[in-house]
Amino acid sequence: MSARQRLLDAALDLFAEHGVSGTSLQMIADRLGVTKAAVYHQFPTKEEIVLAVIGPALDALASIADAAQARRTPAARRDVALRGVVDLVVAHRRVAAVMRFDPVVQQIVTSHPAMVSMLRIRELITGPDPDTATSVAASMISGGLIVAGIDAALEHLDDDTLREQLLDAANRLFSRRARPAAAARARP
Amino acid sequence: MSARQRLLDAALDLFAEHGVSGTSLQMIADRLGVTKAAVYHQFPTKEEIVLAVIGPALDALASIADAAQARRTPAARRDVALRGVVDLVVAHRRVAAVMRFDPVVQQIVTSHPAMVSMLRIRELITGPDPDTATSVAASMISGGLIVAGIDAALEHLDDDTLREQLLDAANRLFSRRARPAAAARARP
Repeated sequence: MSARQRLLDAALDLFAEHGVSGTSLQMIADRLGVTKAAVYHQFPTKEEIVLAVIGPALDALASIADAAQARRTPAARRDVALRGVVDLVVAHRRVAAVMRFDPVVQQIVTSHPAMVSMLRIRELITGPDPDTATSVAASMISGGLIVAGIDAALEHLDDDTLREQLLDAANRLFSRRARPAAAARARP
Repeated sequence: MSARQRLLDAALDLFAEHGVSGTSLQMIADRLGVTKAAVYHQFPTKEEIVLAVIGPALDALASIADAAQARRTPAARRDVALRGVVDLVVAHRRVAAVMRFDPVVQQIVTSHPAMVSMLRIRELITGPDPDTATSVAASMISGGLIVAGIDAALEHLDDDTLREQLLDAANRLFSRRARPAAAARARP
């Protein structure tokens, strides 16, 4: 493992324990047994460390949005977008879990180009002008995928099983059910 | 609003911006325009502030578990437990969102009596010895409810609509679908 990767792994461990705000360059140096100057030499700010940790996952979002957008039907666009985010969460289980809900990370991501891709993916999943049920399903998926990817109760699942199960659960959230109001209208 | 509630509101604002780790008693004092000694007088440690913020929601968990456990059938137990957590999330949208994923909060909650209630509620929702799909559904619900309760895309929904939609989405995650393998077995 490269020195850079060791540093990012140590940083992610500390972020998980203390949050990004509660982690200092000094703490990362102590964890690695090096001087703060050595950390500073590679990453002059904590923000650069955060971006290095989440960068690979963020970079993948644009490709997912592009691949989904290239499909012809709304159903195919949703399917490709859902598969893309499920694959991403499973591939980056720990990074997603630690970073997704950190307030410092959220502030960094809000001004990151990947934010545009996230909004595109959400619209590819819901379609334009979604109704309330569809918006709620999309929100539940966005939080549920992250948590499911790190839940201790699911830790024993291999990547393929977890991927298949998450995709199945996400699709169930979008499944159509007979709604009393609609049924009443259909058979007056 | 009481001085205590003003302090807790200011703390929650700061927790949302900086995480619990990144928030100091001094920052809370500055936000309120009082001295650090005044904050310290009410809450000698940050942990006590965290517990005061999340306490009402944690205390409600035991009642939810008891109410669900008192029902006779697994379906009724799941239903009461799901309604209970959905009501709780909707009633405490912001606290749930800010605190649920904070690593410091997680450490505090792990050794809190409410942890037992959380595990009871999970088992009331899944039943004992759940299969993989049921475990994944429960995990998705636990994360999805929290995120859905704070998603900007859902902010305009009133509490009743949000409650109904979340319950509907959670139930859909548990809905049975014809599974190819089961269908093949049923009609050989």
